[in-house]
Amino acid sequence: MMFPEIDTPAVLVDLDIAEANIDRFQTHCEQHGIRLRPHIKTHKLPRLARRQIAAGAIGITCQKISEAEAMLAEGGISDVLLTYNVLGAAKLARLRALATRVRLTVVCDNEVVAEGLSDAFGSGRMALDVLVECDTGAGRCGVTSPEAAARLAQRLNDLPGLRFAGLMTYPPAGREAAVQDWLARAVAACAARGLRVDTVSTGGTPGMWQAQEVPCATEYRAGTYIYNDRSLVVRGTCGWKDCALTVLATVVSVPASDRAIIDAGSKVLTSDLLGLSGYGHVLERPDIAIESLSEEHGTLRAEVIGLRVGDRVRIVPNHACVVSNMLDRVELIRGDRHEATAPVAARGRVW
Amino acid sequence: MMFPEIDTPAVLVDLDIAEANIDRFQTHCEQHGIRLRPHIKTHKLPRLARRQIAAGAIGITCQKISEAEAMLAEGGISDVLLTYNVLGAAKLARLRALATRVRLTVVCDNEVVAEGLSDAFGSGRMALDVLVECDTGAGRCGVTSPEAAARLAQRLNDLPGLRFAGLMTYPPAGREAAVQDWLARAVAACAARGLRVDTVSTGGTPGMWQAQEVPCATEYRAGTYIYNDRSLVVRGTCGWKDCALTVLATVVSVPASDRAIIDAGSKVLTSDLLGLSGYGHVLERPDIAIESLSEEHGTLRAEVIGLRVGDRVRIVPNHACVVSNMLDRVELIRGDRHEATAPVAARGRVW
Repeated sequence: MMFPEIDTPAVLVDLDIAEANIDRFQTHCEQHGIRLRPHIKTHKLPRLARRQIAAGAIGITCQKISEAEAMLAEGGISDVLLTYNVLGAAKLARLRALATRVRLTVVCDNEVVAEGLSDAFGSGRMALDVLVECDTGAGRCGVTSPEAAARLAQRLNDLPGLRFAGLMTYPPAGREAAVQDWLARAVAACAARGLRVDTVSTGGTPGMWQAQEVPCATEYRAGTYIYNDRSLVVRGTCGWKDCALTVLATVVSVPASDRAIIDAGSKVLTSDLLGLSGYGHVLERPDIAIESLSEEHGTLRAEVIGLRVGDRVRIVPNHACVVSNMLDRVELIRGDRHEATAPVAARGRVW
Repeated sequence: MMFPEIDTPAVLVDLDIAEANIDRFQTHCEQHGIRLRPHIKTHKLPRLARRQIAAGAIGITCQKISEAEAMLAEGGISDVLLTYNVLGAAKLARLRALATRVRLTVVCDNEVVAEGLSDAFGSGRMALDVLVECDTGAGRCGVTSPEAAARLAQRLNDLPGLRFAGLMTYPPAGREAAVQDWLARAVAACAARGLRVDTVSTGGTPGMWQAQEVPCATEYRAGTYIYNDRSLVVRGTCGWKDCALTVLATVVSVPASDRAIIDAGSKVLTSDLLGLSGYGHVLERPDIAIESLSEEHGTLRAEVIGLRVGDRVRIVPNHACVVSNMLDRVELIRGDRHEATAPVAARGRVW
């Protein structure tokens, strides 16, 4: 039986694979003169954030203030980019506290957020660095034109307590030329107003090996690259052997010769499909489909299921980041050896 | 602004609505002579489990041992049905500990689980009550024929430390006649072997108002009925006013006149679709579609979005149970009044 000392369902993280993933993309970024700023949302573990920084990362990316707070609790991290519009008195007070502890940069895509940030930082000693978030085609947050980016940059620079520090985008993968064009026009529009663009931050694991195809970018944010997942294998970004996070599950019922039920459902694997069919890949059993999940059960289907009650399987989930967010702990392994249990420090930190 | 004292994203539970939901279905069950055994997976809060018992429930249903442990921590609960195949030494040891603290019943659908239970309880003072789990059409766990149910019932009765206590099924909603037929045949097959069937437990919120249409059932398990959700409104099981759980979110960006971005993504609302289109219902704005979620962002779309940065919205999620599992705390409200913050005791308890 695999890992008899670990009760199931469990999230396993192979540190050998994760460290190799960290080092491989760090090398790629350095070869292309790009600064790497890993997004910690994938692992939510301070020890892996420190490992990324030790490998050469310039700092970390967090999505929420509470994630950053959790990352800083153990020390060793001194530079944080928060890629989220921060709004409201409660969050701004915590943001001010955070800014006294690390070199902090935030993003902003609208005037309401800009004015809130200025109100919070206008009376302080140091200006807060702010990047203008740009929608270069992904259709999420972000100003929607290069000229709008320059206008907001100007506004940030004019507001007390803030310093316009550059541009940030979560780009659509595979459209590097369009992203470069958008950002270059935004840099030019800023320059026309006399505004220096220190940082141009792009990111995304799906497009990581093409990071250098956006030459005006200075910095790359990637999260999932540390663990990888089924969605990235299907895209060709990595192979199964590069997947550091797996779910260990036990077969609890074999009702028919073509069907088995495991003790991992949507509360572990999540319902994220990312455009795929099925909810994960059973290692060494590519013939099995994880065809449905209820909260605590997963249904495996194959022509001949060939599993017995009590057997264990290891699953590469569709999306590693969301699986990290489901349980309070992960099991750190190296190959077949169980090394430690780690609390997931930033799990559920959505504030 | 709604609930200015609550930071977003937040999960709100309106206790007035939840209590009315508890009482309404309790009354329905009593009118039809059915025992109600609520599934606590929906709320994961000991105080609401106690409220369900105070209203007349015979006990609670849990899916995992860790859920039951969390429910018992505050006392006041004395009867637990665990509707899951329990396997493995670690879990069986915890099951034995649980059995000393409450009247415990478990389920089983195969011999491997039966033998494990017998090994764990065979040397104890008291026999463990076990229900045979039956697949009456939902295609998840369960023996697949009435005769197989009777065979396993016999085996349970023959094994040391166990007592066959009846049948349990998670039935397919809307097929009550077929479920009744299946279960009646299983009861008859047990009777033919001289086995008394004390309990016949069915369940499911979607079919709750038809519980009495399976006359051989003695007990009904329902979870979601306490909160309700968008999937149940769409099915016609309840109305929007009966939805006790909502997600409070803030608009963080309005990039276009037809689109707004909120600070609740899949880490709050989850990716559960339950066959629906979109990820929830914005209260008082039926024209808005929650068309996509990333981990921390939700994208709202409407012909005229009519929202400003900083506005708040309340969302009825597709599936309440999985939302309860995402955050460590919920905000208890009554109407417009914030009453308390409650830790979600059984959140993430999948073991």
